[in-house]
Amino acid sequence: MSYGFMGQLLRVDLTNHTITVEEINQTWAKQYLGGTGLATKYFYEEVPSGIDPLGPENKLIFMTGPLTGTASASASRYSVVAKSPQTNLWGQANSGGSFGPVLKKSGYDGIIFEGVSPTPVALQIIDGKAELLDASHLWGKTVPDTEDALQDSISQKLTVAAIGQAGENLVTYAAIMNNKHRAAGRCGLGAVMGSKKLKAIACVGSQPVQLADKKGFHDAATKQFDLIDESMLKVGFDAFGTNMVADFVHVRGGYPTMNWQQGVFDGIDDVNAQAIMDTVFVEGTRCFACPITCGRGTEIKEGKWKGDKGEGPEYESTNTLGSMCGVSDINAITKSNYLCNEYGLDTISTGATIAFAMECFEKGIITKEQTDGLEITFGDGDMVVALVKKIAIREGIGDLLAKGTKAVAEKLGQGSEKFAMHVKGLELPAYDSRAAKITGLGYVTANRGGDHMTGYIQGPTFMDIPFLIVDDSSIRDPFQANPEEAHVLVDMENALTVLDAFGGCKFMGMLLPADELLDLYVKATGWSTTVEDFRKAGERIYNLTRAACVREGASREDDVLPERLMAQPIPGGPAEGMVNDPEMLELMKDAYYDFRGWDSATGIPTQEKLRELDLEDLIPDLWG
Amino acid sequence: MSYGFMGQLLRVDLTNHTITVEEINQTWAKQYLGGTGLATKYFYEEVPSGIDPLGPENKLIFMTGPLTGTASASASRYSVVAKSPQTNLWGQANSGGSFGPVLKKSGYDGIIFEGVSPTPVALQIIDGKAELLDASHLWGKTVPDTEDALQDSISQKLTVAAIGQAGENLVTYAAIMNNKHRAAGRCGLGAVMGSKKLKAIACVGSQPVQLADKKGFHDAATKQFDLIDESMLKVGFDAFGTNMVADFVHVRGGYPTMNWQQGVFDGIDDVNAQAIMDTVFVEGTRCFACPITCGRGTEIKEGKWKGDKGEGPEYESTNTLGSMCGVSDINAITKSNYLCNEYGLDTISTGATIAFAMECFEKGIITKEQTDGLEITFGDGDMVVALVKKIAIREGIGDLLAKGTKAVAEKLGQGSEKFAMHVKGLELPAYDSRAAKITGLGYVTANRGGDHMTGYIQGPTFMDIPFLIVDDSSIRDPFQANPEEAHVLVDMENALTVLDAFGGCKFMGMLLPADELLDLYVKATGWSTTVEDFRKAGERIYNLTRAACVREGASREDDVLPERLMAQPIPGGPAEGMVNDPEMLELMKDAYYDFRGWDSATGIPTQEKLRELDLEDLIPDLWG
Repeated sequence: MSYGFMGQLLRVDLTNHTITVEEINQTWAKQYLGGTGLATKYFYEEVPSGIDPLGPENKLIFMTGPLTGTASASASRYSVVAKSPQTNLWGQANSGGSFGPVLKKSGYDGIIFEGVSPTPVALQIIDGKAELLDASHLWGKTVPDTEDALQDSISQKLTVAAIGQAGENLVTYAAIMNNKHRAAGRCGLGAVMGSKKLKAIACVGSQPVQLADKKGFHDAATKQFDLIDESMLKVGFDAFGTNMVADFVHVRGGYPTMNWQQGVFDGIDDVNAQAIMDTVFVEGTRCFACPITCGRGTEIKEGKWKGDKGEGPEYESTNTLGSMCGVSDINAITKSNYLCNEYGLDTISTGATIAFAMECFEKGIITKEQTDGLEITFGDGDMVVALVKKIAIREGIGDLLAKGTKAVAEKLGQGSEKFAMHVKGLELPAYDSRAAKITGLGYVTANRGGDHMTGYIQGPTFMDIPFLIVDDSSIRDPFQANPEEAHVLVDMENALTVLDAFGGCKFMGMLLPADELLDLYVKATGWSTTVEDFRKAGERIYNLTRAACVREGASREDDVLPERLMAQPIPGGPAEGMVNDPEMLELMKDAYYDFRGWDSATGIPTQEKLRELDLEDLIPDLWG
Repeated sequence: MSYGFMGQLLRVDLTNHTITVEEINQTWAKQYLGGTGLATKYFYEEVPSGIDPLGPENKLIFMTGPLTGTASASASRYSVVAKSPQTNLWGQANSGGSFGPVLKKSGYDGIIFEGVSPTPVALQIIDGKAELLDASHLWGKTVPDTEDALQDSISQKLTVAAIGQAGENLVTYAAIMNNKHRAAGRCGLGAVMGSKKLKAIACVGSQPVQLADKKGFHDAATKQFDLIDESMLKVGFDAFGTNMVADFVHVRGGYPTMNWQQGVFDGIDDVNAQAIMDTVFVEGTRCFACPITCGRGTEIKEGKWKGDKGEGPEYESTNTLGSMCGVSDINAITKSNYLCNEYGLDTISTGATIAFAMECFEKGIITKEQTDGLEITFGDGDMVVALVKKIAIREGIGDLLAKGTKAVAEKLGQGSEKFAMHVKGLELPAYDSRAAKITGLGYVTANRGGDHMTGYIQGPTFMDIPFLIVDDSSIRDPFQANPEEAHVLVDMENALTVLDAFGGCKFMGMLLPADELLDLYVKATGWSTTVEDFRKAGERIYNLTRAACVREGASREDDVLPERLMAQPIPGGPAEGMVNDPEMLELMKDAYYDFRGWDSATGIPTQEKLRELDLEDLIPDLWG
């Protein structure tokens, strides 16, 4: 081998500080494509169920895809897979920027970290040569300080992924950051990295990715780049960034506000895309080889944080650190976002957990005694900023909140579970599923927990897509639940799983049809395949991730929404009175499992489906 | 009656100068919804086949829809139906602005013009009171001069639809203009109006449209307005107008250039949306009750036409008066567009016919003798400006070109038919179907001829829509032909037919799902109906328009593309080598007729289908 792949992995034993190079498993690479898919296969084979996510038996697997590091547009991503300390199930996060491409070009498709280092370390890879460095002097540093220190002491050419204090301190929703501002944010994989005493990975990569059909690939990639470069998505995202979505969601009454107590926010005009353009925006930023500048290079231009610079906030961060906490002060939101990036925290879970704490405080479930006298009230942007730091360094109430919404609710009790806004332990993102029912189905079927990127079904439902009016088989109304729509979610989950495996951005996946992606894949790898094989691979990976969760004990009964969404209608605004009716959710799940070929009673992939997907070796694990 | 409708029509006998008021046919209004649908029913019942489109037997039917003139967002349109002098078949055109709403609020859902006036007249309607005015003094005036003269002499409150010199002079592709800059452009209905010596319709309307559920309608309309107001489409169109599409189409290599001899244009950066923003743009403009400012208020800011003002050019006009003629001078394109609006010419057919003439000149088929010595060469923007005027006043070569591409080719011969870019006599718009095959199917199945607004299938194919990757049943690649995709075109034709019947803009139809449109319709009319009935109505209307064409002799063999598209591959650019393979087109037609329930051999709706759609009374006409 190997075209499209570098052909080898690094296996880093942190306990013993040994590094070995091994060939990538070609059979698996073909079956699971790369990225999340391939990482999950290694994870499934090598990590037994029942282990402690923060113990030495967990493995932290970084993996790039066959398109990562090539000239393919919008394919800059790397994935990380490990058991999640938030969900205690299979966990996954991925990120753009340039770290993925540089890691791959350093000579390795991925890295499997095993064990726990006795002392803080960093992995350095300079064009094939990998070594573990002592990182004791970096421990306690923020993400940007870590990156700067590594570059200053070794080489400015280093591209760095690192954790901040949050990961070191095992905040369950700590993120792995790269290029300072980019996050593999969800599932608390920064805490896994911290538990292993792995502070950073720093790479120099100048080895080209070998392509089976170099000329053909270049032509196809150029064409795809041009297509994305001339798209409505680019027009909108270049101008407004991902926060363009804020108005779209808000106008439908599904913009989570004050811990999902409301779906509209009085301060929307202070926090929407235009508000960011008018205040903190400096310049659009982009990932490696992407024509869309959806990132927001920003600077706080007034007040106490004047002069602070960074990237974001993106849409999710603006909502969760903003209106979800009742905050409309864009400078405070931006500062909270900067701090999350610096400490290495997932902005969604951070903001959501703070919002949950605010409601607990409002209801007297958290008292001033627990907060050292602080008033944790909705609308106080300075308080959000303060709490982000307390969480990262586990100070005062921050030590409790660092456990995440689910664990905090379990500890506090007193009915707080009813408004603990998570699915399977992962805090929900910024789309109220009561206002767009199929989004709720997406939240419960996403294998990494309450997630919007697995199926991205909130996109078509919240954003209006022409097919809404033309698909006779499924007359869609985003405000109504319709079990027949479940097949759309299944299709989207499978399709987007392929993108995670390729190293592709999901926005790119909205623009390129399957056969154009296939064309890039075939020309990169030289492996002949069909669009049908390709979809089957997406379905195979999705079933494998489900199996990884089932093996940990997950089943249909875990595929549930927070009680608030099922029992408390949205009290006002355009979605007033709407709720995720539990009976309808069960009907939609029936339809979903049916489309998936999963057992309806348990939500476990049937033996027939497993055989169809060449996953018969999972049968003993799931049906033992 | 009647909610949603004013309940009455004006019938104007131009031969005898009598005006009668009649009740609208309620049964027909329910079956054909309004607008194009209802107008077509009157047309079918009242206008026999075989008549001269420019003779007294043709009728010119203006009709608004049940949503026209209400607070419903983006529902400002009126339709005009008559036999077309371009296609000699059923013809239809519609337009936004404020004329439709004002006509309706003047007290009438529509007007049926019959016969031919001995002398030029204008119809004036002031809140229910209709009279024919002598318009001899207006004959020979441009559209804006006509509007100004009527307003100056009668009332500034008048809203006007009028023809310019092109309609008077029976240019076969003359348009009916309203609000000076808006065109019911296609099918040459301005020539029909001119043939009747009807110069203008001028209305004052202040009567409200009665609504069955006023409060409910207001709430629903407000909600829909808000949804459209917060949409990706608005983001793009507010910023760039319809010409945003230019880059999207060009990057796919399907931007018609020099009479479709090429699919890419060297001067694209001088004529795309950004170029218009940087040069002639002044301000965005909008239609009645629409939140999207997709119109471009413009002014020529330099050169010989400095200070000239107007609206546009829109996307189609920019291409047809620009790159289709090889012209990249945005000021010349803008001036040509202004002149088309002033003389009342359809910009698509005008530009396309000039482009055709330029290729004929290039090939020596049109000679300097025919042009009075003019060099009609590609790239000469001043020449396009000059020819627009010559066509409108039928001067020199303009007298020939005024007949339209098909007739010119028939007259010239010498192989020019092979590159005469029309379907059924209607010049093709600005999307090269060789680069997006299903667009070619849409061109041949559109009942008004080579049209892009009937099925709008070039939208999803040229602009990338997320469903491309998720619809398992029909894996779409816009560059490949796939008969299975034909059902998508059928669905879109039916759905957009409903919009034409409602008075809705097709952009709105991309944003609102069927049941939200239904909700507006039910609350406006009080007529209970279902989404299924609604789709059936769209299909019924589509079949009726087909029947109107079949009755004139049209059949499957008329559903063909110009020879250039089927025999000459695009010679360069991203779509190099692509062609509308004639065999594949026939396979796609097979699939289309099959999905439609039409007889495959003839393309005529089967008796079974006609019965299913309550159109059994058409059986004797079609199957006699």
